Amino acid sequence: MDFDTIAAISTALGEGGIAIIRISGPKAIRAADHLFKAKNKSLQSLEEAPSHTIHYGHIVEPKTDRIIDEVLVSVMRGPKSFTAEDVVEINTHGGIIAVKQVMDVILEMDDVRIAEPGEFTKRAFLNGRIDLMQAEAVIDVIRSRSDRAFSIAQKQSEGVLSRKIAALRQTVIELLAHIEVNIDYPEHDVEELTAQFIKDQCQSAIVEIEKLLKTANEGKILREGIVTAIVGRPNVGKSSMLNTLAQDEKAIVTDIPGTTRDVIEQVVTINGIPLRLLDTAGIRETSDLVEKIGVERSKDALKDADLILYVINYNESLHDEDKILLQELIDRPLIVIVNKTDLQQQLDMAELQSLVDKNMVVQTSMIADEGIDQLEQKISELFFDGQLESDDLTYISNVRHISLLKKARQALYDAIEATDVGIPIDIIQIDARMAWEALGEILGDQAGDSLIDQIFTQFCLGK
Amino acid sequence: MDFDTIAAISTALGEGGIAIIRISGPKAIRAADHLFKAKNKSLQSLEEAPSHTIHYGHIVEPKTDRIIDEVLVSVMRGPKSFTAEDVVEINTHGGIIAVKQVMDVILEMDDVRIAEPGEFTKRAFLNGRIDLMQAEAVIDVIRSRSDRAFSIAQKQSEGVLSRKIAALRQTVIELLAHIEVNIDYPEHDVEELTAQFIKDQCQSAIVEIEKLLKTANEGKILREGIVTAIVGRPNVGKSSMLNTLAQDEKAIVTDIPGTTRDVIEQVVTINGIPLRLLDTAGIRETSDLVEKIGVERSKDALKDADLILYVINYNESLHDEDKILLQELIDRPLIVIVNKTDLQQQLDMAELQSLVDKNMVVQTSMIADEGIDQLEQKISELFFDGQLESDDLTYISNVRHISLLKKARQALYDAIEATDVGIPIDIIQIDARMAWEALGEILGDQAGDSLIDQIFTQFCLGK
Repeated sequence: MDFDTIAAISTALGEGGIAIIRISGPKAIRAADHLFKAKNKSLQSLEEAPSHTIHYGHIVEPKTDRIIDEVLVSVMRGPKSFTAEDVVEINTHGGIIAVKQVMDVILEMDDVRIAEPGEFTKRAFLNGRIDLMQAEAVIDVIRSRSDRAFSIAQKQSEGVLSRKIAALRQTVIELLAHIEVNIDYPEHDVEELTAQFIKDQCQSAIVEIEKLLKTANEGKILREGIVTAIVGRPNVGKSSMLNTLAQDEKAIVTDIPGTTRDVIEQVVTINGIPLRLLDTAGIRETSDLVEKIGVERSKDALKDADLILYVINYNESLHDEDKILLQELIDRPLIVIVNKTDLQQQLDMAELQSLVDKNMVVQTSMIADEGIDQLEQKISELFFDGQLESDDLTYISNVRHISLLKKARQALYDAIEATDVGIPIDIIQIDARMAWEALGEILGDQAGDSLIDQIFTQFCLGK
Repeated sequence: MDFDTIAAISTALGEGGIAIIRISGPKAIRAADHLFKAKNKSLQSLEEAPSHTIHYGHIVEPKTDRIIDEVLVSVMRGPKSFTAEDVVEINTHGGIIAVKQVMDVILEMDDVRIAEPGEFTKRAFLNGRIDLMQAEAVIDVIRSRSDRAFSIAQKQSEGVLSRKIAALRQTVIELLAHIEVNIDYPEHDVEELTAQFIKDQCQSAIVEIEKLLKTANEGKILREGIVTAIVGRPNVGKSSMLNTLAQDEKAIVTDIPGTTRDVIEQVVTINGIPLRLLDTAGIRETSDLVEKIGVERSKDALKDADLILYVINYNESLHDEDKILLQELIDRPLIVIVNKTDLQQQLDMAELQSLVDKNMVVQTSMIADEGIDQLEQKISELFFDGQLESDDLTYISNVRHISLLKKARQALYDAIEATDVGIPIDIIQIDARMAWEALGEILGDQAGDSLIDQIFTQFCLGK
């Protein structure tokens, strides 16, 4: 395909030693050469530079000859590059100004425009280096908040899932071929044998699709995290619970700047399961939730949570608000944490257990660091039937993939049913083709422009 | 020198397409090779790779053979590298997890430890690739908040100032040589000639030092910015002034995360002059400052400001609090902004001008975008005698350099005075040597370990 030349800052903005500007397209090397003055005088031009070499020198403003920054320039010629086009990466000083000034002179050139979000990865897809499923995994790799979510995305980016989808398509294409032979040369075939073959092929594809869809729920949770609210009256130990979870050596705590600059989300990863804690302000808010805004509104505020951790003090008797709110929350994914078991018991455990699923009550002492393992176990039980698959990291996690797999499965069921009731084979062919196309759309074979645009605009700039 | 091998993440943390981990030291290449599996099977080992080449492949956990991330690895052999040692840069996927996981397996190796802040630049200095003044400029380049501050730091990092200091040292060394000849062979010399030569050399060095020190005030402001408070009663137009300044095409507004995560400082650059606005919360605070906390405490809160922009409403008569506070601020760097001149005049201008330096009163209409140029002009007048040098960007801006230059100047004055009163030449030699050492300390020749440590700990990690 014929593309223009694009450029963008590819590292996160902020204080750091190095920033990278990536240029990709047919004029990438010429554009960089126009601005670059090598320290090594024997290099006449970057256009002479062999692929995959690094060159030290300066970015110089062409009009004024003013030195802008000291840089390293990497030349990578297509198709052996990220985009499969000619790529130049300019490593400038980190911080804000150096990279901005270099970017400014790059964009002053007629032949280069700023890349749209995700456009480098889009080119890698459009140039056929990766399929759509792999391209989608790139953004998941970058956005992943936990080791496990990262590993799943990384595997997907390497094409592990793509190969499973391709195998499925192979099954469907054999089916289609068989049907087409039958349509073209009906005299060569025995009707019953064809019917059985169609049903077998469909069934075998359905079994594989079911296997993939079975991973979808867990995959989605691992990818997106469990939205978790920590609730309880003041002083029951919510903050120390948060701290304990965070300090646990199995946990990673990260403060993630959101797309708007005020939003900070905290993610605590427990045993590989990412809990997206309602934002810090929100946690402070929920501290006094029960007291301040009453039961009804508390319920309302909690409606978006996938998981509610309700903390109660072992050292106090159950408050009336707690009783009411717990009863209201009984049909929600709720774990009741009886904290401060290091102190004297005042809580009537029998009363508490009569209010909630007693299997979902955990006793902890955050100060003595007791009961945390049990809490982690309960979370696993609620979301992963007690254990996470640890080896096979091929999860379907993307909503788009899930819905296309379901569409393919439905088409295959339709084909089986049509065969059973003796519907003409060219109608069955339509079902089979629909399954083929749905699977193809996962990999991007049949994806329209608007779908592709929509997928890549979710990317960050510079990728 | 003999160093161990160090590693750190060298890009800013956050969402981005690429992150870089830098490894430097004698075992950098071997360590990277241990973890790297090249896609190109003809590359047996990174240790065979020519310098300044890029290699595509995967970082693999050695114990488990688990693929961690898809990477590009750059090999740069010393002394032609940033640290003048063997350097490997690993470009991983951006985001948080990929770079963290790769960093983890690097640090699991016995031969690599995490770099201290600034340690790569420190090595470049200790290995003699750059002098201390250039090393200090590296952090200024990264931290710079305005184009001008960046250009100044960039020039300094290239050694422009270092060469001026070196020339000064040349003058002093000639002086010292002359004195030493005189001490060793007093019979070869004519006393008066020596005295004259000493005074001439000292004087000529002093003239050069003065020139440099003259740039210090402006240099410091350009490097660090003018700490600016915008003050005024509610509804006089402080926010729209901030917005107007920010939206001006000559202005750059950047929100800079501070070292503690809650502090955000806003820098508005006007005509190349960076104004560090007291933090946004602070500006909101100062909105009601006069009303809320009274004149005394307002004065107190403003004591750290280099510049006070006091906004008054053209459409109201002067309030009593304004009168009192303006009188109290009369000896401060104060610009009074009479805003809302698009509305009807209610303000008694004569009364206002009797209270403050009428040369420092500016009339604006933020809504009509009037008077902003005049405001910018007043700021230039207050801090730069009306105009910024635009060509020569060799400013002395670092407090350490300023104080050492003053020390050298004092030693040279002492030498002149000693010569005048006929003090023996070996005493004068002590003064000359002191000047020589002070200048040497600027470049790091005479810098002790504790000074060097202190300078580099101000750096960010990964540089």
